[in-house]
Amino acid sequence: MIQTTATGGPPPQSGGPVDQAFIDDLVLASHILAEQGVLDGYGHCSVRHPHAKDRYFLSASLSPAVIAASDIMEYDLDSAPVDQRGRKMFLERFIHGEIYKARPEVNAVVHSHSPTVIPFSVSTVPLQPICHMSAFLGGGVPNFEIHDAAQITDLLIRDNYLGRSLAHSLGRYDVCLMRGHGSVAVGADIMTAVYRAVYTEVNARLQAQAIALGGQIRFLAQGEYELIENRTDKNYERPWRMWKERVRKP
Amino acid sequence: MIQTTATGGPPPQSGGPVDQAFIDDLVLASHILAEQGVLDGYGHCSVRHPHAKDRYFLSASLSPAVIAASDIMEYDLDSAPVDQRGRKMFLERFIHGEIYKARPEVNAVVHSHSPTVIPFSVSTVPLQPICHMSAFLGGGVPNFEIHDAAQITDLLIRDNYLGRSLAHSLGRYDVCLMRGHGSVAVGADIMTAVYRAVYTEVNARLQAQAIALGGQIRFLAQGEYELIENRTDKNYERPWRMWKERVRKP
Amino acid sequence: MIQTTATGGPPPQSGGPVDQAFIDDLVLASHILAEQGVLDGYGHCSVRHPHAKDRYFLSASLSPAVIAASDIMEYDLDSAPVDQRGRKMFLERFIHGEIYKARPEVNAVVHSHSPTVIPFSVSTVPLQPICHMSAFLGGGVPNFEIHDAAQITDLLIRDNYLGRSLAHSLGRYDVCLMRGHGSVAVGADIMTAVYRAVYTEVNARLQAQAIALGGQIRFLAQGEYELIENRTDKNYERPWRMWKERVRKP
Amino acid sequence: MIQTTATGGPPPQSGGPVDQAFIDDLVLASHILAEQGVLDGYGHCSVRHPHAKDRYFLSASLSPAVIAASDIMEYDLDSAPVDQRGRKMFLERFIHGEIYKARPEVNAVVHSHSPTVIPFSVSTVPLQPICHMSAFLGGGVPNFEIHDAAQITDLLIRDNYLGRSLAHSLGRYDVCLMRGHGSVAVGADIMTAVYRAVYTEVNARLQAQAIALGGQIRFLAQGEYELIENRTDKNYERPWRMWKERVRKP
Repeated sequence: MIQTTATGGPPPQSGGPVDQAFIDDLVLASHILAEQGVLDGYGHCSVRHPHAKDRYFLSASLSPAVIAASDIMEYDLDSAPVDQRGRKMFLERFIHGEIYKARPEVNAVVHSHSPTVIPFSVSTVPLQPICHMSAFLGGGVPNFEIHDAAQITDLLIRDNYLGRSLAHSLGRYDVCLMRGHGSVAVGADIMTAVYRAVYTEVNARLQAQAIALGGQIRFLAQGEYELIENRTDKNYERPWRMWKERVRKP
Repeated sequence: MIQTTATGGPPPQSGGPVDQAFIDDLVLASHILAEQGVLDGYGHCSVRHPHAKDRYFLSASLSPAVIAASDIMEYDLDSAPVDQRGRKMFLERFIHGEIYKARPEVNAVVHSHSPTVIPFSVSTVPLQPICHMSAFLGGGVPNFEIHDAAQITDLLIRDNYLGRSLAHSLGRYDVCLMRGHGSVAVGADIMTAVYRAVYTEVNARLQAQAIALGGQIRFLAQGEYELIENRTDKNYERPWRMWKERVRKP
Repeated sequence: MIQTTATGGPPPQSGGPVDQAFIDDLVLASHILAEQGVLDGYGHCSVRHPHAKDRYFLSASLSPAVIAASDIMEYDLDSAPVDQRGRKMFLERFIHGEIYKARPEVNAVVHSHSPTVIPFSVSTVPLQPICHMSAFLGGGVPNFEIHDAAQITDLLIRDNYLGRSLAHSLGRYDVCLMRGHGSVAVGADIMTAVYRAVYTEVNARLQAQAIALGGQIRFLAQGEYELIENRTDKNYERPWRMWKERVRKP
Repeated sequence: MIQTTATGGPPPQSGGPVDQAFIDDLVLASHILAEQGVLDGYGHCSVRHPHAKDRYFLSASLSPAVIAASDIMEYDLDSAPVDQRGRKMFLERFIHGEIYKARPEVNAVVHSHSPTVIPFSVSTVPLQPICHMSAFLGGGVPNFEIHDAAQITDLLIRDNYLGRSLAHSLGRYDVCLMRGHGSVAVGADIMTAVYRAVYTEVNARLQAQAIALGGQIRFLAQGEYELIENRTDKNYERPWRMWKERVRKP
């Protein structure tokens, strides 16, 4: 493990080189999330360093649709950059660092403003899993109320304290709403975090439509979503491969 | 007719060669359904073997938007593969085999998660035909509640028993919802099954919008949908030709 | 004027040659309406012959997105073809012939199944003009109930009697809904008919969204829509030019 | 400062040459707003002359998606053209001139008919800020009721009096709805005005969806939107750069 330097000291050391394909997947993930309408001009996704648990990768402050491998930066878990070289950093990078601290088994984080999730973040109506594809929402979806953590803010996660507060709200869940702002989705790998970010938005759309029909709604039963989440053959690979193929098109 | 081998025996024999154009139509059908937003990363469509009633064709487990003719596999009605050659199979292929067993006049099956149909599958509000283009919904749309067949499941049709249960719910209808999951649409040929899958989604959108207006809704009368369904000039060829042209574009 | 032959007699004579640009505009109109989501696999648009009031032009039975100038056919007002040459005709061409008979000042007709208009055709909630761009809806939008004209039908306008009944419902209005089916929009020229078809759909979307907000809605006042409709500078040219440019792109 | 000539006199003098990049940004802004679905066949955006506070630039009367640098015209604040050269002018250019008169700190104005904002303009339900990205809506969004200014009209801002009335309704706000018509969004630079036009539409969509969920909604608190609007690092550059890149694609 690498020592994390205190603020003001020298920059943290790198966790070491990683495969180009690993970085390429992070870039593709951003492009996929943009193409799927989950990320727009804002939002970001990161991966933990595969060889150093206390480092993660996140692009410079650019729109997800346009980043390239050369825009990927390395951070320690206090979100200090290893090698900034004048690149602009995301104000909200602390989301990533603090979630990696709190959740050792999480290796990828997506922060988005996906359009049908925001309305649930400001509503008293809870987001609930409508179909087998979004069983990961089954245990409940916490909603981070930043006002509880820091009173009046601009709603952005501008420091480690706010990142820690968000990570606390996320707890052991896979997705956490952020009131008036968006959400985070996490996973053991980038494919899983991307899948969850996309299908949180899909589920929000399905649930909003089901509510609009005006009848009673049957959500997944506890036994059902637990069974699905305990399966090892959840088959996220199929959409992942399709999405990759789509954004690779010239 | 070809004998179907029992599980564990040698693979079933092929029903014999078919025209390339026949296979190409199955591939185009998948691409059309993806382009129309009926299939996404999941879902599949199959056709019965034209010369062997107890065989059907279905692609390997890939996203519908990306399959090619070489991905098409042949199965017997127990959904055992004729010639697997290491290709990954859809977990839910039993949907197809069991519907072909139960419905001799059906020669094509689409299983989809189309987005506006899922909300009806979890709602007490029934899907009903709003316009002449979806008269095939007129007799009523059954909803397969997997919990009634097998208690707690992951909602997937993972074996012949569940496929049979779904086929039983489908009965003599053209479309059957699957609670918290999606739907199946069937037809005497692939054009008809694709048409029904697309227009089930279209009708769901139209009905949801009509409900949202808040007034009383006049659905097709029984005499109307029966008259339409008994017509022989339903003219599915026009959109079918248009859709094919669209997905063929380079 | 040219004599219209009775059914069974020789085909009607042509109203004479017309400019290629005139036919091209009809083709572009179809492509525009497809690109705008007003026409899909079904629906059609026609223009009256510029030199013979009792003839009109309409494409052969093809999807609007794919027609070319060579698909345009000429009809008399009983919708008998001048020169069929084996081309398939729209079953519902009688819509056009009978409206041209009933409305001498109308020179273009669009029949569509545009998606947000159909819900109004089956709802007790009336379509009303929300903004200045759809002032042409101001006098009220009649809804053709085919059951009143012919009891149980397949909802299609399959003959001159049904065409006449629809034209009667249309009366002096610019747009008429067709219950469970779609609508017609008419105009003194093709630009105006296309504009009205597009903005009927736009207004339906705006009104549906305004209803969903749950408050009181202020529609255009009578003085407002009358003033707008009496203006001679309604400026339909701007979107018309933009739409043409868009569909011309290779 | 340049003297503005009275109506009927010689045309006003130019405020002097400006950088090509400045004009290019105005053209790109139009293309961005068209690509984002904020402007369609109608609507326009302008910038104040950077060296002459009493001149502004606005394209000739063309659809925003198709304008080029050569279509940009210069006007004085009475909206008289410096050099018309037979080009067709927007009927509603008075919106721009009068806002520039009333708001010296405003240097860019967008007038749009963006689709989800119009429903709020005719509804008793007020538009309110749902998320940090639309904090600029926080102080309230006035709604210009043209009937109060001029009784029965065609709703268009056809002269300086109506432009002045609209500017009066706008007051010190950043956005003003126009009943049955659309809205205006203003900013200290074109990036800001474009951002506000886009995110007014985004907020309208989010709020409409939140309302449709049926629960209670928590809008931004006063302290929150004030804090956000007082920040100097609002980071509109990121989407602005992304949008530019998108419309520049060949």
